Amino acid sequence: MQKPSIPKGTRDFSPEEVAKRNYIIQTIRQAFESYGFQPIETPSFENMETLMGKYGEEGDRLIFKILNSGDFLKDVPQDLYEERNSQRITSQISEKALRYDLTVPFARYVVQHQNEIAFPFKRYQIQPVWRADRPQKGRYREFYQCDADVVGARSLWQEVEFVQLYDSVFTALQVKGVTIKMNHRKILSGFAEIIGAPDKLIDFTVALDKLDKIGKEKVEEEMCSKGISTEAIAKIQPVFSLEGDFSQKISQLKELLATSSVGLEGVADLEFIHAQTQQLGLQTATLELEVTLARGLNYYTGAIFEVAAPREVSLGSIGGGGRYDELTAIFGLKGMSGIGISFGLDRIYLVLEQLGLFPTAIAKSLEVLCVNFGDREALVSFGLVQQLRAQGYKAELYPEATKLKKQLAYADSRKVKYVVLIGEAELTAGTAVIKYMDTGEQATCPITEIGKVISEK
Amino acid sequence: MQKPSIPKGTRDFSPEEVAKRNYIIQTIRQAFESYGFQPIETPSFENMETLMGKYGEEGDRLIFKILNSGDFLKDVPQDLYEERNSQRITSQISEKALRYDLTVPFARYVVQHQNEIAFPFKRYQIQPVWRADRPQKGRYREFYQCDADVVGARSLWQEVEFVQLYDSVFTALQVKGVTIKMNHRKILSGFAEIIGAPDKLIDFTVALDKLDKIGKEKVEEEMCSKGISTEAIAKIQPVFSLEGDFSQKISQLKELLATSSVGLEGVADLEFIHAQTQQLGLQTATLELEVTLARGLNYYTGAIFEVAAPREVSLGSIGGGGRYDELTAIFGLKGMSGIGISFGLDRIYLVLEQLGLFPTAIAKSLEVLCVNFGDREALVSFGLVQQLRAQGYKAELYPEATKLKKQLAYADSRKVKYVVLIGEAELTAGTAVIKYMDTGEQATCPITEIGKVISEK
Repeated sequence: MQKPSIPKGTRDFSPEEVAKRNYIIQTIRQAFESYGFQPIETPSFENMETLMGKYGEEGDRLIFKILNSGDFLKDVPQDLYEERNSQRITSQISEKALRYDLTVPFARYVVQHQNEIAFPFKRYQIQPVWRADRPQKGRYREFYQCDADVVGARSLWQEVEFVQLYDSVFTALQVKGVTIKMNHRKILSGFAEIIGAPDKLIDFTVALDKLDKIGKEKVEEEMCSKGISTEAIAKIQPVFSLEGDFSQKISQLKELLATSSVGLEGVADLEFIHAQTQQLGLQTATLELEVTLARGLNYYTGAIFEVAAPREVSLGSIGGGGRYDELTAIFGLKGMSGIGISFGLDRIYLVLEQLGLFPTAIAKSLEVLCVNFGDREALVSFGLVQQLRAQGYKAELYPEATKLKKQLAYADSRKVKYVVLIGEAELTAGTAVIKYMDTGEQATCPITEIGKVISEK
Repeated sequence: MQKPSIPKGTRDFSPEEVAKRNYIIQTIRQAFESYGFQPIETPSFENMETLMGKYGEEGDRLIFKILNSGDFLKDVPQDLYEERNSQRITSQISEKALRYDLTVPFARYVVQHQNEIAFPFKRYQIQPVWRADRPQKGRYREFYQCDADVVGARSLWQEVEFVQLYDSVFTALQVKGVTIKMNHRKILSGFAEIIGAPDKLIDFTVALDKLDKIGKEKVEEEMCSKGISTEAIAKIQPVFSLEGDFSQKISQLKELLATSSVGLEGVADLEFIHAQTQQLGLQTATLELEVTLARGLNYYTGAIFEVAAPREVSLGSIGGGGRYDELTAIFGLKGMSGIGISFGLDRIYLVLEQLGLFPTAIAKSLEVLCVNFGDREALVSFGLVQQLRAQGYKAELYPEATKLKKQLAYADSRKVKYVVLIGEAELTAGTAVIKYMDTGEQATCPITEIGKVISEK
């Protein structure tokens, strides 16, 4: 028989990995809740029409479709069947699909439940999503998204709050030195206006986004190749060499965008967000203005966020988000502005791993093991185990009265700190031997005092 | 545009529902961990061959299959395609399927990772599963399973431990008066031996299982119709009228099964489990012997558990499990005895709802709302909000400086306890007004003392 395996791009998580992932999730969840966000959960699969057409053509392809149950071919028209066209037959044999992200299901949720919701609605959602992407290092077909969004409020205080939230989460995780980069869709629109090519906004920003990676010259080449004139590119030169801190960049942008009212609106928004953040202060993060930032452009309409890991770990983005007007318009509910951010669980896991920031306690799955010397002794040990559990310890009785060596080896492999031995002699005396696994020392005390001895250690 | 919807048999969970579900899950998780169980997680979908054939023919039909990505028809042989047979074409166009339970993935996990695992392996797993069952009241196509299993130990102390675990969880959830029913596969085999029809074991127990529902006569009729002789049924009469407590039933079974060595083995096992449980005591649950219990018979080889909700809620089973030898043999690893139990999240939810046992605090998604009177005041309020969050409160600033009435209505709908108002006058004075929403009272105090005032309330 072949050794079993799992589908490519998916993962089994061992106890240690689950404990570490839960530590991150719990930290994020706690921050979300202290910020007043409320959890919702949506089904793993949605009706096909809820998802299709929401992520572009590429996205449609990458959505996992679920085969209809039963005789799914029964109602396929014969002429369509004879075409043997996978794409055209799909909608006939599949009417459900696994969710691709948490944003579209959230939009669907808001529209469907609009009468039960108090707006502004602050929701968070931490659930897996699935994408039929080609698996590669760090990219999976099943992964968690951790999203917090607010829908129904246009105030910039929301942006200010998300900056604070990022700072709170990474501070709680002890990850010091993350950079919260911000940009604004309207600043990018302003650039397009300045170069006299508002229709080239996407091409322009896609090229600009590569500045760090390929350098100024190549970016200019790419812009040229997209039909942006050298004259226009000359006008926008200052963008390539913005310098200084947030405020200084704001000043330079005000000058550069002086003739673009939309551009100035974007600058004013960021100025406000920055000013409030300055006043409130950040614990460990830094706020930066990054005009090349263009993530999810066809989507965001206002502020854009991206969080970079501390410089010493070269891992890139560990979170991002932005404001998108008309979140729910795709489902027919207009005038709902939304803003949201996301935490990249897998990337954050790597950051904590690289920086050694996981608390050692979280991998402890067992604190006390009672050795099993046979049923009579085991019964007393089990009573002790129940007491320790009630006190909050992770404790167990070894299930079988097997060789001591084997039981101690098990204790070792579970990284147990205390082994308790109640053999025949101890049973008679009402005592127990406690063995400290890290030092090898041991001590004898009344059974009734084991809990106390451990808690005082 | 049509109002969006979700697939039948699936559910959206509102903030309140998620909070309540998480309360149950957290309680179960904590108990699992204090008992030394370790969490694992497996992918939502498995390779088709991992799942198919493990749940019987009916199970195979109810497994959700995932359509292959891309041009999935490309490699289907033309003659097979022309057959237009849904069942036969499935394996050609689908190679992955959503997990149907947590036990088969667990067995797969153990075999795949056997060299990394220290046995006995105590694992728990709390994840959703999917079944293409016909949806009906209380039956969903997506639902959570909460399983704890031990693999690699034959000792009956494991059974004793699971009885304690059930008691611990329901006590922690404040559900008093659950009944832990036990039976044993070998007792049922003993019955079949006694009636001289070991080959009729399944038919016999399936009929016996209905005793409570349809009564003795109908059960006898069904047995007859399955070819069990009236003479045989006469021999087994005492089974229909076992009386008394656990020990008394044990005595009656010893007599009845005197000539069946396998039957007596089963009785001895239950006697041991009961004796230890008597000694250890149970906090709120009752242990009962129920010879009609036959859940998952083709599966269990030893002890069988089922937990019934307290009598005042007529909800039936809220958990169950048992011992199954050869858990991992389906994947080629022999000699691994397993035992596991499961908690029925949806049913437990209904029990807590009916008995009013959800703590009121868990539905509180926001404790303090600061009213927004404009940017200057908002900045100071936001500073206060950040302080309160750091103290562990769920707090927020209303994002927009809109009418007070609207902001207070929002506070009401979020069930906020404290509303803090820092208007122009307060700003100048460095004070804040705190309004207690349940009494309508309000008080003024320095902004710096709000945290203290609330914590003392």
